Amino acid sequence: MRRETPVARIRLVLSPEVAIGPGKVNLLEGIRETGSISAAGRRMGMSYKRAWMLVDTMNGDFSKPLVKAIKGGKAGGGAALTALGKDVLERYRRIEQATAQAAAGDLAALNRSRRKPSKT
Amino acid sequence: MRRETPVARIRLVLSPEVAIGPGKVNLLEGIRETGSISAAGRRMGMSYKRAWMLVDTMNGDFSKPLVKAIKGGKAGGGAALTALGKDVLERYRRIEQATAQAAAGDLAALNRSRRKPSKT
Repeated sequence: MRRETPVARIRLVLSPEVAIGPGKVNLLEGIRETGSISAAGRRMGMSYKRAWMLVDTMNGDFSKPLVKAIKGGKAGGGAALTALGKDVLERYRRIEQATAQAAAGDLAALNRSRRKPSKT
Repeated sequence: MRRETPVARIRLVLSPEVAIGPGKVNLLEGIRETGSISAAGRRMGMSYKRAWMLVDTMNGDFSKPLVKAIKGGKAGGGAALTALGKDVLERYRRIEQATAQAAAGDLAALNRSRRKPSKT
């Protein structure tokens, strides 16, 4: 499905080396919801290798890991967000929400100024 | 110079094909300030070809051009923003400013949770 509603996408640049954008945040959210790095990556159309690499990067970028391994269970273990992982996810979503509210009028105006695709 | 203050970068996605981010907006601002596409690109470290391509894309993405050619003058002509170009630039900067204000506390907290580079 193509998204037709205009949106403001956010990339938080914490330092020249450390940034958090929609990809990492959606992956964190997916891990929280599925309890699995591979399942979270899969529903984003991301390879397991790529998902694992993003998690590894995020864990190294912060003072404590954002994602931890969960041992045991019928699937032989999974993954979960740490307290810091939940905190990062919540702060990003809060910024995103505040931006969406602040930007709504301007986004709608910009969208009206956009060239409309021809109907043919 | 490396930017050490955390920032929220914005990318406005108006449709699957049309987006405006820092690159295009800084180019518009540069054209407004220098009166020249090549000078605006140069100060961003961007080739003239790339700058011209971005302008061409923006002009085609909206119902009217954002950048127009200015004939004459000692340099044999230059470029200026149209009313719509100024409008797009101003709306983007307003969204960016509102986001910066809304995000300040969360950005500072995320930055404190970041792993600090070793001093060696």
